[in-house]
Amino acid sequence: MSILDKISTSSDVKKLNINQLPELSSDIRELIVRSVLQNGGHLSSNLGVVELVVGLHYVFDFPKDKLIFDVGHQCYTHKILTGRKQGFNRLRQSDGVSGFPKFQESEFDIANTGHASTSLSVACGLARALTDSQIISILGDGAMTGGLICEALNDISFGSNKQIIIINDNKMSISENETYTSYFLSRLDNLTKYNSLNRIGVKYYGSIDGHNFEEIVKALEFAKNSDQTVIIHAITQKGRGYKPAEDDPVGYHGYSTSQSSNSFSNVFGQKLCKMADENKDIWAITAAMKDGVGLNDFAQKHKDRFVDVGIAEAHAMTMASGLALGGKRPYFAVYSTFLQRSFDSLLHDICLNNLPVTVCIDRAGIVSNDGETHQGIYDVSFLRCMPNICIMQPKDYVELENMLDFSLLCDCPVAIRYPKGESKYDFLVHEPIQIGKFEKICFDQNNKVTILAGGALMNEIAMTACKLLAEKNINVNVINARFVKPLDSEMLDEIKDTKIVVLEDNASCGGLWSAVLEYYNKNNQNVALFAKNLGDNTYIQATTAEILKEHGLDAQSIATFVEKL
Amino acid sequence: MSILDKISTSSDVKKLNINQLPELSSDIRELIVRSVLQNGGHLSSNLGVVELVVGLHYVFDFPKDKLIFDVGHQCYTHKILTGRKQGFNRLRQSDGVSGFPKFQESEFDIANTGHASTSLSVACGLARALTDSQIISILGDGAMTGGLICEALNDISFGSNKQIIIINDNKMSISENETYTSYFLSRLDNLTKYNSLNRIGVKYYGSIDGHNFEEIVKALEFAKNSDQTVIIHAITQKGRGYKPAEDDPVGYHGYSTSQSSNSFSNVFGQKLCKMADENKDIWAITAAMKDGVGLNDFAQKHKDRFVDVGIAEAHAMTMASGLALGGKRPYFAVYSTFLQRSFDSLLHDICLNNLPVTVCIDRAGIVSNDGETHQGIYDVSFLRCMPNICIMQPKDYVELENMLDFSLLCDCPVAIRYPKGESKYDFLVHEPIQIGKFEKICFDQNNKVTILAGGALMNEIAMTACKLLAEKNINVNVINARFVKPLDSEMLDEIKDTKIVVLEDNASCGGLWSAVLEYYNKNNQNVALFAKNLGDNTYIQATTAEILKEHGLDAQSIATFVEKL
Repeated sequence: MSILDKISTSSDVKKLNINQLPELSSDIRELIVRSVLQNGGHLSSNLGVVELVVGLHYVFDFPKDKLIFDVGHQCYTHKILTGRKQGFNRLRQSDGVSGFPKFQESEFDIANTGHASTSLSVACGLARALTDSQIISILGDGAMTGGLICEALNDISFGSNKQIIIINDNKMSISENETYTSYFLSRLDNLTKYNSLNRIGVKYYGSIDGHNFEEIVKALEFAKNSDQTVIIHAITQKGRGYKPAEDDPVGYHGYSTSQSSNSFSNVFGQKLCKMADENKDIWAITAAMKDGVGLNDFAQKHKDRFVDVGIAEAHAMTMASGLALGGKRPYFAVYSTFLQRSFDSLLHDICLNNLPVTVCIDRAGIVSNDGETHQGIYDVSFLRCMPNICIMQPKDYVELENMLDFSLLCDCPVAIRYPKGESKYDFLVHEPIQIGKFEKICFDQNNKVTILAGGALMNEIAMTACKLLAEKNINVNVINARFVKPLDSEMLDEIKDTKIVVLEDNASCGGLWSAVLEYYNKNNQNVALFAKNLGDNTYIQATTAEILKEHGLDAQSIATFVEKL
Repeated sequence: MSILDKISTSSDVKKLNINQLPELSSDIRELIVRSVLQNGGHLSSNLGVVELVVGLHYVFDFPKDKLIFDVGHQCYTHKILTGRKQGFNRLRQSDGVSGFPKFQESEFDIANTGHASTSLSVACGLARALTDSQIISILGDGAMTGGLICEALNDISFGSNKQIIIINDNKMSISENETYTSYFLSRLDNLTKYNSLNRIGVKYYGSIDGHNFEEIVKALEFAKNSDQTVIIHAITQKGRGYKPAEDDPVGYHGYSTSQSSNSFSNVFGQKLCKMADENKDIWAITAAMKDGVGLNDFAQKHKDRFVDVGIAEAHAMTMASGLALGGKRPYFAVYSTFLQRSFDSLLHDICLNNLPVTVCIDRAGIVSNDGETHQGIYDVSFLRCMPNICIMQPKDYVELENMLDFSLLCDCPVAIRYPKGESKYDFLVHEPIQIGKFEKICFDQNNKVTILAGGALMNEIAMTACKLLAEKNINVNVINARFVKPLDSEMLDEIKDTKIVVLEDNASCGGLWSAVLEYYNKNNQNVALFAKNLGDNTYIQATTAEILKEHGLDAQSIATFVEKL
């Protein structure tokens, strides 16, 4: 029987002798590596914090005390120690535990998180609310570049109650932006200096070896007994204990079980790289997601026109406005869920000024396995209200390339949204992109039903549904709604007497469906319109196929629905 | 002929002798005071920066060089010196100059701004784009608390091109949060220290007397000739040169020509104060707008449960999530336009976690005179896609109070949106608030038309239109759409056979109109629906009445429209 077998929940960790903690950590590492290699997930970062988290459970009294993981993806050890060993074998699957904190799973998880830099702000609130509990945050992985952290540090300096902040300094964030961490760590020295002036009232403890239990426990006991906020600076090794991850911590930051040959991200990156060869005004911007959004080659080839601002989406967007004001053509590539963080920068700095900035929205629509905090299902709704913006969604790789070419001709803000992963269907025909023009994929004036869809749902679902129906000798129109804004008024007029089924991988409120309804209503046209979308509350951690099915958006469900019409 | 009479545009300032600049400044002050007392506007902050801005025009070469005003409201001297003396007499009126930078007015204005903390990010982009121009930002007034500034400082430290940053240190921001400025100014010392380590490559120059031209010009010349980014720290006096503003700079920060006796802000503040007497879990949060949102009394009476986080709306929201997680009932009062800055914090930290945080949205709908950057016309669109949220809009003061009482009963995120200024019409009847229930104001089964409106448009427009129609013996239903989410399905079913006119002070895409369309479409009901809203591009600086009229939303236009129906 291993030591881990004896641990049912957090309080069991306290019963161990400090000398047993390394063995417990070793057991945990083994379980993490096994499960991640099988199910995918965040490997390096979790292996780096095993001892820190074990130490926290040894010293503190959870769930009375509160433990917040910034970003959330380093919570595996915490889950294993809090009654979720079994579910951990099915990590990130619909019948297993989530890869992020999830209050529905356990009272040991504070809140559902997945975005960076929120921890200290949450902690400021918790510390005010629960004066009898210890409030502890673990930060690292570049979260320090987010402005939210600075806003929280201001609050702490102005008098927020005591909290404990553990900086997990692994000398690395998702991309190779070590400078971010080192920049903050230089700031820590200043905090210490301020402390001596009693201006901020923060104690700095460190640095400690984040894999040495003597040092960890001593530091945590010190922080526990302090009346003031304490920042513990722990040096850790990413990927610790698993040789391949130790050697390549960036490659193993996130481990995916499926390795696809191509993806919308790659096609975007390659195309922009080519465009930048021709056009010297093109700039590419990322917020710490160079690999994820496919900008590796651009960063190498056009080093002088590539900017990685760290996890700082608002700055990325407002900085892009400055580039555009200076006559450049900036392309900001960002995951849909993180675009939410630059909402005001896009609206206030770009759309109100009608600047030619192109936002390349990766991971739009359904994002598999990471749960609700990573879904890209709100962008159509929140972008549509912005003035001047042109919103497109390509049906396949070639159309993405065409839209990128087209964006250069636009003298306004442009958003191009495309899904995670690969294109399932390569279309043979690609009509030239014209502003506000849909594309007829299948069309016959005698058809009674029209399927209106764009992007991922055009690529895979609408086409497959169309084929399933054709097998039953049912012919339907399929229209590629490649523009969400502006809409194609001519085409909408042309199909108004058919039954129209609008498919979208977006929340139900305010998306493409609403846009189409608004158009017909504005023109006093009564139409038979049917909506299939992701509803108003997508709490689901599952594969894309499972989520589509759940909402009746899989090809078979659509085919059946159309057949009944 | 005064010196100011000789200044047609920026280059004329250079022709003066440095000894003439004080007299020019005096002329400018006189014009500013005269125009602001007549038209309203920002007084103290503009009087504080006269010499700094005159000095900038003396030393730099605009518009080739670029001058960015953070927030934008300190741009009056700049406007007066760049060919807009005449329009300045009609400051903030539809036929005069804007109170904020406006590229439509002049090539000397970079972009239209009105939100704080964006300047350095814009400058980072401009500095990359225009390597032959000097890029200068003026910051002050608490803008340093915004996380965006920190994100930009990171970018500067990582290698953004040279820029010039002038800290306008008037020892004061909008509220009495001197600590914010002093906190940042302590940081400046550290920047200097870093500089000596060559880590950030920023030179610190200061502090200088921001009213002394010898010192100003010397500092600006130094900055101009530097290869590195320079931060100039200028000490200024807010309200300088106008005795009442010198004595009461907070009171004269913004000067309004109309002084109303009551307002939605006041009613909110007083009510929350009373609720907090009874319920010890209630907390109030502001982002540097204590006076504006009506929380003065709360701050005094319930000091321990009041938090002013500075201009840091994202932190305010995420911090509120922490309070709610700790069992408290936080109320975050924020202007609609600034709520845009906490979009992701509201969605990711509050709505996805379904936490009982109440967002009290002040200045929702039309905001007079400040132009497009201050309009509160997007909130319905961007809030509606968030899961779990309940969105309300009160028709008058009593209903606002009732909604605040109701919010305490809600176990979910709540948004209550109400307009700037006062209620024009006090209703006699107030049906108790029930989740998702509209209210019949006028109703008869035989009526052929229903006006559906909420908030400010219910308060004033719908009621007045109803009266105008009654004078012509036309009776219409008037329904108070006090819930935007969830909608009142029963009531919508009841009125489905009437012609429905939906009024809203929101942009056209994705608002109440769309919500109603979605409802009827989901239920396969064809209705005769007509929308009156603020359209898709509200570029207008005018009074509320003028903006309403422009969009056919004034009572007379509505009455005429209904009559034709």
